[in-house]
Amino acid sequence: MAAKASFDEMRALFSRLPDPDEAAAAAAAEREGQLTKPPGALGRLEELSAWLCRWQGRHPPRLDRPRVAVFAGNHGVAARGVSAFPAEVTAQMVGNFRNGGAAINQLCKAFDAELRVYEMALDQPTADFSAGPAMSEDDCATAMAYGMTAVEDGIDLLCVGEMGIANTTSAAAICHALFGGTAADWTGPGTGVQGAALANKTRVVGEAVALHRAAAGDALEVLRCLGGREIAAMAGAIVAARMARVPVLIDGFVSSAAAAVLHKARPGLLDHCVVAHVSAEPGHRRLLQEIAKAPLFDLGMRLGEASGAALALGLLRGAVACHTGMATFAEAAVSNKG
Amino acid sequence: MAAKASFDEMRALFSRLPDPDEAAAAAAAEREGQLTKPPGALGRLEELSAWLCRWQGRHPPRLDRPRVAVFAGNHGVAARGVSAFPAEVTAQMVGNFRNGGAAINQLCKAFDAELRVYEMALDQPTADFSAGPAMSEDDCATAMAYGMTAVEDGIDLLCVGEMGIANTTSAAAICHALFGGTAADWTGPGTGVQGAALANKTRVVGEAVALHRAAAGDALEVLRCLGGREIAAMAGAIVAARMARVPVLIDGFVSSAAAAVLHKARPGLLDHCVVAHVSAEPGHRRLLQEIAKAPLFDLGMRLGEASGAALALGLLRGAVACHTGMATFAEAAVSNKG
Repeated sequence: MAAKASFDEMRALFSRLPDPDEAAAAAAAEREGQLTKPPGALGRLEELSAWLCRWQGRHPPRLDRPRVAVFAGNHGVAARGVSAFPAEVTAQMVGNFRNGGAAINQLCKAFDAELRVYEMALDQPTADFSAGPAMSEDDCATAMAYGMTAVEDGIDLLCVGEMGIANTTSAAAICHALFGGTAADWTGPGTGVQGAALANKTRVVGEAVALHRAAAGDALEVLRCLGGREIAAMAGAIVAARMARVPVLIDGFVSSAAAAVLHKARPGLLDHCVVAHVSAEPGHRRLLQEIAKAPLFDLGMRLGEASGAALALGLLRGAVACHTGMATFAEAAVSNKG
Repeated sequence: MAAKASFDEMRALFSRLPDPDEAAAAAAAEREGQLTKPPGALGRLEELSAWLCRWQGRHPPRLDRPRVAVFAGNHGVAARGVSAFPAEVTAQMVGNFRNGGAAINQLCKAFDAELRVYEMALDQPTADFSAGPAMSEDDCATAMAYGMTAVEDGIDLLCVGEMGIANTTSAAAICHALFGGTAADWTGPGTGVQGAALANKTRVVGEAVALHRAAAGDALEVLRCLGGREIAAMAGAIVAARMARVPVLIDGFVSSAAAAVLHKARPGLLDHCVVAHVSAEPGHRRLLQEIAKAPLFDLGMRLGEASGAALALGLLRGAVACHTGMATFAEAAVSNKG
C-alpha cells in the first residue's frame, strides 16, 4: 500500500464490501438436512458451516489454510502505570512467539494453523493518548494498511489477535468513546491490575476519552486518538478479509474493540466475523452486546494473542469435519424422521 | 465380570473410590505460574490441565489415548410414540458408526480419538417402563458391568455418549424420579417431537415415574426401573474410569442422567468428570445444576453420540498443548509481573 494511506481510502473500501453468498449458504443448509442426524442437532456447528460457506463463497466450506495473525504494538500510555507488566514485555513476547514458546504457538500446532506475527515499530510506542492523539491519520491508516497484508491469496480463515502492553487501556478508551457509559464500565484488570492501580487505569481512560471528546462521532478518529498500531492493524485485517471473502474469527476484548471501530464506521461490516469467546475482561460482554455478536464459548480466558480464536478454530474444524464427512440418510440407509 | 452382577457389587465399588492426586494437581498449578502469560489468563484451560493431573494421578497430563465410548440400546417405551424417529434407527445408526458416516466418526478423526461402539442387545429392547420396570437387577447390573469394560489399560481419557431411540424419555424419567419437579421440567423434544407428541411424551414420563414411585429413594432402583441398557452402561463406564484413574468427559442430557444416578448413589462419585456442554434439550441445564457441573460450552447441540464430549476433547487438547508446550518466563527471558 502507498505510504500516504488515508481514512478516505479506508472509507472508500467500506462502501464497496462484497455481499454474502447466500447460494453457498443454501447449499450448506440443504446438505445439513440430509446428514444422518435430527435436523439442527449439531446446533451452532451447523451455523458455523453455513457461515463459512456464506463468506468463503463456496460449498463445501474449506479449512485448508487457516491463518492466525497476531499484531504487536506498544503504547505511550503504558508510562501511566496502567499495566501489571513492563512495556518491554511486548517485544519479549514477540521473541517468545518467534521461538515457539507462547500459548498461541501451542494452539496453532494443536489445530494446524499457520501463525504470523506482525511486529509494529515496538521501539516507537504510539503517543500517550492521555496527553494527545495516539497517532496521526497517516500513522493510523498506514497501520490499517499494514494489517491488510495479513490477508493473502489462499487463506481460507483468519484468526485475529494481538499483543501489546497497555492495550486493554486503549481498548477500554475506544469502547468508552464509541459506546458511552462510564470509564469503569469498560476498564478491567487486563493482565492483572487491581485496587489503586485499577482505579488509576480507570481514571486514565476517563480523562483520555474526555480529552478526545471531539473524536467521538467518527469511529476512525476514535481509533486514531485512542487506539494503537496493533489495534488499527486488526481493523485493517478484518476489512481486507471481507474484501477477499475470508471469514474471520475475532479473539477477545482488544480485538473486539478493533472490530467495534468498523461496526461503528459501517454497520454490517462485521457480518463475515464470528467472535470466538467472551473474555474474562469485564467490559467484553458489554462490548459484544454493542456489536451484536454471540461468542462461541466462555472459558474465562483473558490472554489475547488470538488464543481464544485459535481455540475456536478447533470447534470450527469439528463443524467442517461433520459437514463434509458425514453420510446422508440415503448413503447410510438410515430411516429419516417418521 | 460374573454373569450374576448385582447392585451390592456396585455399591461395594462406590465405597472404595480412589481419591484425587492433589500433589499432581499442585505440580500443574506450579508450572502454570511459571508459563509466559499473566497468572490465570488461560482461565478454564488451566483448570482442565489441573483436573487431568488430579485424576490421572500424574504430571504432566497426558492425552495420548483418549477413547470415545458410545453405548447403544433400545427401549420398550419407544412403542409409546415418544420419539420422532422409528426404533430401528438405533441399529441403523450403529451401522453408520461402524461405517464411519456419523458425526461422532468425523469428530473422533478431527481430534484423534479412538471410537468404540458398544451395541447392547438391540433386538431385545428393555421392557416398556410405563408398564413395569425396564430391567431386572441382573440385567441392569450386567449392563453396568459391560459398560465398565470400556475402560482398558492405557486409556487416558474417556468420553461417554450414547445412541438409543426413545432414550431422552428414559433420561427425563430418571431425572424426574431423582430430583422431583414435574415431568414437564425434564421432558423435551429429543430428536424433535413437539406439540401433541411432546405432550404425550411428557405424560408417559409422568405416569412412569408415578408407577415406580417406590424406587425413587434408591438411585440404582431408579436406573433399573426407568433406565436403559446404554444408560446403565454409561454409569458403569464412569465408575470404572474412576477406579482406573481415567478422567471422564460426559456428553449431553442422556449421559448426564446416567451420571446423575451415580451422583445420587454416592456424592462425589462424579468428581473425576467434566460435563462437556449444555445441550439444547431443555432439562439439561437444570440437571447440571442438580449434579453441580458447569459445562464447557453451550452450542445448542442435541445429538448425543458423545458428539459434545468429542468436541470438548478438542478444547482439552488445546489446554494440554499450552500446559505442556509453553515456555516459562525464565526459559523465554520474559519479564514477569512488575
